[in-house]
Amino acid sequence: MTQNNREMKLGAFFMIPGHHVAAWRHPKAEAHQTMSFEFIKRLAQTAERGKFDMVFLADNYAVRRNNQKVLGQTVNTLFEPFTLLSALSAVTNHIGFVGTVSTTFNEPFNVARRFASLDHLSGGRAGWNVVTSSTDVEAQNFNLEQQLLHEKRYERAEEFVDVVKKLWDSWEDDALIIDKEEAQFADPSKIHAINHKGEWFSVAGPLNISRPVQGHPVVIQAGSSEAGKELAARTAEVIFTAWQTLEEAQSFYADVKGRMAKYGRSPEDLKIMPGIFPVIGRTEEEAEENKMLLEDLIPEEAGISLLSGMISVDLSGYPVDGPLPDLPELDQINGGKSRFQLLKDLADREGLTIRQLYQRIAGARGHREIKGTPEQIADQMQEWFENGAADGFNIMPPYLPGGLDDFVNLVIPVLQKRGLFRKEYTGNTLRENLGLKRPVNTLIESIKETI
Amino acid sequence: MTQNNREMKLGAFFMIPGHHVAAWRHPKAEAHQTMSFEFIKRLAQTAERGKFDMVFLADNYAVRRNNQKVLGQTVNTLFEPFTLLSALSAVTNHIGFVGTVSTTFNEPFNVARRFASLDHLSGGRAGWNVVTSSTDVEAQNFNLEQQLLHEKRYERAEEFVDVVKKLWDSWEDDALIIDKEEAQFADPSKIHAINHKGEWFSVAGPLNISRPVQGHPVVIQAGSSEAGKELAARTAEVIFTAWQTLEEAQSFYADVKGRMAKYGRSPEDLKIMPGIFPVIGRTEEEAEENKMLLEDLIPEEAGISLLSGMISVDLSGYPVDGPLPDLPELDQINGGKSRFQLLKDLADREGLTIRQLYQRIAGARGHREIKGTPEQIADQMQEWFENGAADGFNIMPPYLPGGLDDFVNLVIPVLQKRGLFRKEYTGNTLRENLGLKRPVNTLIESIKETI
Repeated sequence: MTQNNREMKLGAFFMIPGHHVAAWRHPKAEAHQTMSFEFIKRLAQTAERGKFDMVFLADNYAVRRNNQKVLGQTVNTLFEPFTLLSALSAVTNHIGFVGTVSTTFNEPFNVARRFASLDHLSGGRAGWNVVTSSTDVEAQNFNLEQQLLHEKRYERAEEFVDVVKKLWDSWEDDALIIDKEEAQFADPSKIHAINHKGEWFSVAGPLNISRPVQGHPVVIQAGSSEAGKELAARTAEVIFTAWQTLEEAQSFYADVKGRMAKYGRSPEDLKIMPGIFPVIGRTEEEAEENKMLLEDLIPEEAGISLLSGMISVDLSGYPVDGPLPDLPELDQINGGKSRFQLLKDLADREGLTIRQLYQRIAGARGHREIKGTPEQIADQMQEWFENGAADGFNIMPPYLPGGLDDFVNLVIPVLQKRGLFRKEYTGNTLRENLGLKRPVNTLIESIKETI
Repeated sequence: MTQNNREMKLGAFFMIPGHHVAAWRHPKAEAHQTMSFEFIKRLAQTAERGKFDMVFLADNYAVRRNNQKVLGQTVNTLFEPFTLLSALSAVTNHIGFVGTVSTTFNEPFNVARRFASLDHLSGGRAGWNVVTSSTDVEAQNFNLEQQLLHEKRYERAEEFVDVVKKLWDSWEDDALIIDKEEAQFADPSKIHAINHKGEWFSVAGPLNISRPVQGHPVVIQAGSSEAGKELAARTAEVIFTAWQTLEEAQSFYADVKGRMAKYGRSPEDLKIMPGIFPVIGRTEEEAEENKMLLEDLIPEEAGISLLSGMISVDLSGYPVDGPLPDLPELDQINGGKSRFQLLKDLADREGLTIRQLYQRIAGARGHREIKGTPEQIADQMQEWFENGAADGFNIMPPYLPGGLDDFVNLVIPVLQKRGLFRKEYTGNTLRENLGLKRPVNTLIESIKETI
């Protein structure tokens, strides 16, 4: 495929019942269906009808319980990704399923195994969004008082991903023989221990499931800090990232793709997909009304709490219609560093009050909001896609099911008409649809080298 | 329901492509479908047609890689339980799904959450078979050189189950309000931290998913050691166990049910379900032929290895047609203690050689084998069921799909005709079908007490 007929990649980022912090209060949001599989199944089938590459699920490992009022005003119950995505895979045929799984609160053997299992179940439609988790409330559910330091989390994550990939490679592609007469189910010379001994993990292997259909499930990352960019350049196949302006997105795109050569990778081996929060109207006025409707529904405490969590600084003591207080330096932040920087820059650039800032992020959460008609939204996406800022986008519907229905029914046809997006699935796996190469089995390569 | 119209509970214990170690070599076994979801989906739908209470999946966390020949002769690739059961729940309506998950290689927050998620996804059809895992090869995939001691594993398991139950109880049943006008998604006074601090775990809670549909997913156990029996009497709702004779099964049944009163539980709160390996023929001769067919297909090394693993003693150096060597005392065994004792007793009682013993356990793996016509198999089940030895059975088809098809098409109608088994599902959840009470929320009870 040449640059000229290059097509966008699209993720459908499900947050139930919508991305906006007040989504559940939207008159058309099916908030009562938050814990209904039948509802989410319908959403996945809508996304598949829209030819999305994948359903994407974020995740966390705790309820923020510090503020009782906010606890009651916000949605704190969600499905666990492996269970939900596996169930969705059984009722769809083409769309991929990307689960967010933390390297801090899991073991690599279990994670390698579950993704391999989902990949086999779904016929090669699994992807792993690697995160390190950043909050103390999560750590407190896993025998810790507070979260590991940012640097330590990334060290652990790097080794974790290496171990998982070795485990996925521990069975060669043609290890299964299944010859009843000769009593040969598998070729034992093609099943390998990995004997990993590192700083964080000691894992013998092999995995107890054969090599995934895709070789490896697609590996995705979200971090945009220095450590995150370096890890992504070395190991990620998709980056889900957050940018407000074309210039920032172009700079990030060039930066990360430029780091790949030293790891022997080419720029096409990594798809960069910024998040987009689309506020759609049939007219500009209708789009503006849709935006105001949600903004008016944000409970003040919930808005302040959301913003506080995102910048890892408690803002509850400050006047909501005043400016942000003096914030700590980046190196003192142990949470999501890139999100902290992005929001600090945004507030500085536009001189926003605390309320204005939480209204700005209450839907998109730091990702780019695009408001307008279907044509206008397609224009913005096209501009980024054709100017070195994005290989595709992760779409964050404001509320569900309407926000997704509108995108599929109104925006996707425009993208298809312009030749920017597929009309039918062409690959058999998520990896093929994303245009990513099948990974070589590096474990086997390294064994061959040592012989 | 009185004792007179009491009905059996039945589990469909799936081991793909069958329980017999040579199942995959059976001419009618669909061995090529071992990693096919479509195949297993068909099996689950067959079990649901048969009105089974549940699909049951065993699990392990390692490939036994020490013997290369055996590694090639046996099936060492399997789906991970959470992913497979979740997918199956999406394509069935009534049958329950029980996953085996180890307390040694997981964290309670993750396990509580995944089972709660599966329970919501399936509308209340989830169950957890609690195991502690016993092998060093598994430990070596989780940063250990060798397995924890038996006693330590059980200590950890007890605390693990307590933490999981507290997390399931951390949301009260009516915590969700979802009042859009009043901006009240949940009642924060009904979402509770658990603040557990114990010897093994420190978990703050609450869980980030609302209380499971069943209150608690059904809790199942398999261990029959002293520690296992005590844990079961205190916490289990189903015991999956292995007995060869009516007398042994009766003695175990009375023993465990007798231990329950001191934990404030009544005998009906726990269903005891021995495993059965049914070898079915339309005639006795056909049943005998079916048995011989599988026995002849066992590779000698695979048989010895299976037996060695089950008694935690390496038998590979001994003449296969000679007797078992002198075995260690029970207290020196760090593996599955009850299985060791059962097989030692069996070999002593019948004077079996190593080969005869592995042939005996190559299918049933220590569980009871019943060979015969559908009527004869139903007779044996009825005898145990009506004489204080069992509340139901976990059925282990020798090979798939034929072994399950035969049971559903031939044996179940006999049981139904005798009034021993349901003709239709009557409950909405696994718990209701099993006749188990909905658990009270003990976390909330204890909070009320302290106020």
